[in-house]
Amino acid sequence: MTAHLLTIGDEMLIGQTVDTNAAWLGEQLSLIGAEVVGAQTVRDTPEAITRGLQRGFAEADLVVTTGGLGPTHDDLTKQVVADFFGKELREHDDLTARIEQYYAQTDRAVPEAVRTLAQVPEGFALLENPVGTAPGLFYEDSEDGRMLVVLPGVPQEMKRIMEASGLSRLRERAAGLGAVAHRTLRTTGIVESNLQEKIGDVAADLPDGLSLAYLPSTSGVRLRLTARAEGSGGSQQNGAADARKKLDALEERLRARIHKYVYGTGDDELEAVVGRLLDERGHTVALAESATGGFAAHRLTAVSGASAYFLGSIVAYANRAKTELLGVEPRTIETHGAVSEAVAREMAEGGRSRFGADVALSTTGVAGPTGGTERTPVGTVCVGCATEEGTRAVQLRFTQDRRLNKELFSTALLETLRREVLGVEDAAGAFARET
Amino acid sequence: MTAHLLTIGDEMLIGQTVDTNAAWLGEQLSLIGAEVVGAQTVRDTPEAITRGLQRGFAEADLVVTTGGLGPTHDDLTKQVVADFFGKELREHDDLTARIEQYYAQTDRAVPEAVRTLAQVPEGFALLENPVGTAPGLFYEDSEDGRMLVVLPGVPQEMKRIMEASGLSRLRERAAGLGAVAHRTLRTTGIVESNLQEKIGDVAADLPDGLSLAYLPSTSGVRLRLTARAEGSGGSQQNGAADARKKLDALEERLRARIHKYVYGTGDDELEAVVGRLLDERGHTVALAESATGGFAAHRLTAVSGASAYFLGSIVAYANRAKTELLGVEPRTIETHGAVSEAVAREMAEGGRSRFGADVALSTTGVAGPTGGTERTPVGTVCVGCATEEGTRAVQLRFTQDRRLNKELFSTALLETLRREVLGVEDAAGAFARET
Repeated sequence: MTAHLLTIGDEMLIGQTVDTNAAWLGEQLSLIGAEVVGAQTVRDTPEAITRGLQRGFAEADLVVTTGGLGPTHDDLTKQVVADFFGKELREHDDLTARIEQYYAQTDRAVPEAVRTLAQVPEGFALLENPVGTAPGLFYEDSEDGRMLVVLPGVPQEMKRIMEASGLSRLRERAAGLGAVAHRTLRTTGIVESNLQEKIGDVAADLPDGLSLAYLPSTSGVRLRLTARAEGSGGSQQNGAADARKKLDALEERLRARIHKYVYGTGDDELEAVVGRLLDERGHTVALAESATGGFAAHRLTAVSGASAYFLGSIVAYANRAKTELLGVEPRTIETHGAVSEAVAREMAEGGRSRFGADVALSTTGVAGPTGGTERTPVGTVCVGCATEEGTRAVQLRFTQDRRLNKELFSTALLETLRREVLGVEDAAGAFARET
Repeated sequence: MTAHLLTIGDEMLIGQTVDTNAAWLGEQLSLIGAEVVGAQTVRDTPEAITRGLQRGFAEADLVVTTGGLGPTHDDLTKQVVADFFGKELREHDDLTARIEQYYAQTDRAVPEAVRTLAQVPEGFALLENPVGTAPGLFYEDSEDGRMLVVLPGVPQEMKRIMEASGLSRLRERAAGLGAVAHRTLRTTGIVESNLQEKIGDVAADLPDGLSLAYLPSTSGVRLRLTARAEGSGGSQQNGAADARKKLDALEERLRARIHKYVYGTGDDELEAVVGRLLDERGHTVALAESATGGFAAHRLTAVSGASAYFLGSIVAYANRAKTELLGVEPRTIETHGAVSEAVAREMAEGGRSRFGADVALSTTGVAGPTGGTERTPVGTVCVGCATEEGTRAVQLRFTQDRRLNKELFSTALLETLRREVLGVEDAAGAFARET
């Protein structure tokens, strides 16, 4: 099964909204075995949506639309898809009843616009929406087998609809296709061209049916491995097993070269990997943040179950907070400057003792765009690490961009924590050498 | 000038990367007066990229590509665009020299793959890359006027290239077109259907050339106002002035209905608006975070210049940290539970005194998915606010999703802070009533 994603809405084209739906849908469809061959964003006019459907069905069996399903006047999708397949919109009694019930609960009258949510093109099935009033829609053309899924644009609603019923419907139809398997190795602390130096010869000389792509991001470079099972003979199960075996062999070759940079696979996020390591060892962690301004704590607490190992963070943005709340000596700041390895060390020690943690990490730096000096230009950060065994710190240099720096600084902190917990080579070396 | 965005890369289609470039480019092109009529994402095969170029030029004068410009084997864009316009790739001496110099500085040999970065299709101009080795490219077909901009996929490099030279080149060509003006009003603390009730009649009866769209997000609903200048007569300046006048009138009508929910316009982010208010009044703020886990501090410190008013945050995730670092009475936790208005009040007071801040905000809640109880189910948060005048707290209820809850909790904190600083009605009322 091939799939095409159609995002509807001017707001994406003029850049007022980032389309995160397409990435999520692309991943979910790939996981059930569909091949996503393209994606488009179109304006919310009937003509643009219709042309989008034509283009989508020109290259794929399935088109998934997002957007334009709400109660307001710019929500045209339902009318356009009905026209596209030559169907009429009809009021759906269950939906009307549900909407009336929802508003009755909150003691409000049903706004007139909301009533249009109960209209459904004839022959379309509903996809239950557990978190909102607008359901998704599914249509399969009995003559040519073309399939259409219509989803709202609000990410949370779109996802819940697909998880509750959309994906299971599509999974049946995706079965029986040639097996394609993906795997991702996630690296950090090494830039793309250095990875290329270490594994470029492997990538350049891959056997048929295997491919390798480099995907750089602020948390590191991911390596995407893809394997296609050979021929169309044999069963689906054999094909999948064959593709998996190829991936295993490739992963082993790559890991032999770049083992220490690989912190996880697939969807693993650095913060979740670190959390799992802390949890397994029964260690607790605390932070003393200046340059990351709470972002490192946010990343650690984005992981469900973080309270088992994360005690807290003191975000000491003002110098007075560094001395009063973390016990940094005023003289250390005077002598070395607030952005210094010496201050990072005292911050980490202060954080460790204040929270009574096994290990504490700290950041002090210049995220920018202002505040840089000759000695500590924008992009400088010192990361400290304190444990029972002792305290160390290292100075690193990143970019000119404030938001990017907060991400990179926090990645350096998390990677330092990961290597500390694992007892492998100091992360500082890798970061300092390669960024 | 019409524009089409062409994103190149399997990683976007299989959902391993969210395409944030398209939104940024869409916004920047709209701002210089280009009309972005569509966007596509295609696989990184020569056939898919070629078809993407064909589709793009079928509807637009300008195609902007991102991705596939790096040094690795899956970077095909340059070869494909050269073929598309019937050009040859040639080594560019300046680029070769620059690459050699860059590697000489770091005492490393130039990797062979990196040398391909110096190849440029004949007749293409370079767009300077201030932050990386791969420049952007610009081509204008002398016969039919079609324009092509080729950019790397790494967001930071793409943006810097466009800011440094890409946008100024395009701005000249976009001049002399019919004026379209956009404006955005940013609201928070009110859901889409309630906004619709308050302003739906205005939206339904707009004069010709004006339109209004609702764009919901986790930080609130944005209202996008669009005005097109009438006819094609008159000068560019007159058209722009006419469109602006229409927007002014519409904005005034909308604000009269929903004034208190509007925290900003355009790109204003809630954290920046709050920061500006604090800065103007010379007030300082500190946080005591549990449920937001550092995310509220991160949002405040994402704003450059935050050190003028933001003193810091104590992220007290463990209960012991709440009592030892913030001075919450153990008995308050025993009696009311850690997620309670009473604890939120003591946390806010503790944060205010520890940092010596004018105002302090706190959060304690259940982000989920685990940890919910009958009294405090997942999605519950208590937001506290302490000032010289006194302390208050309110309990709110949001969603089942951990990440979404951290965003919504922090938005509630920031909006509480905004209304506190402005001295307007307590935010709690709005949030409690309408979510």
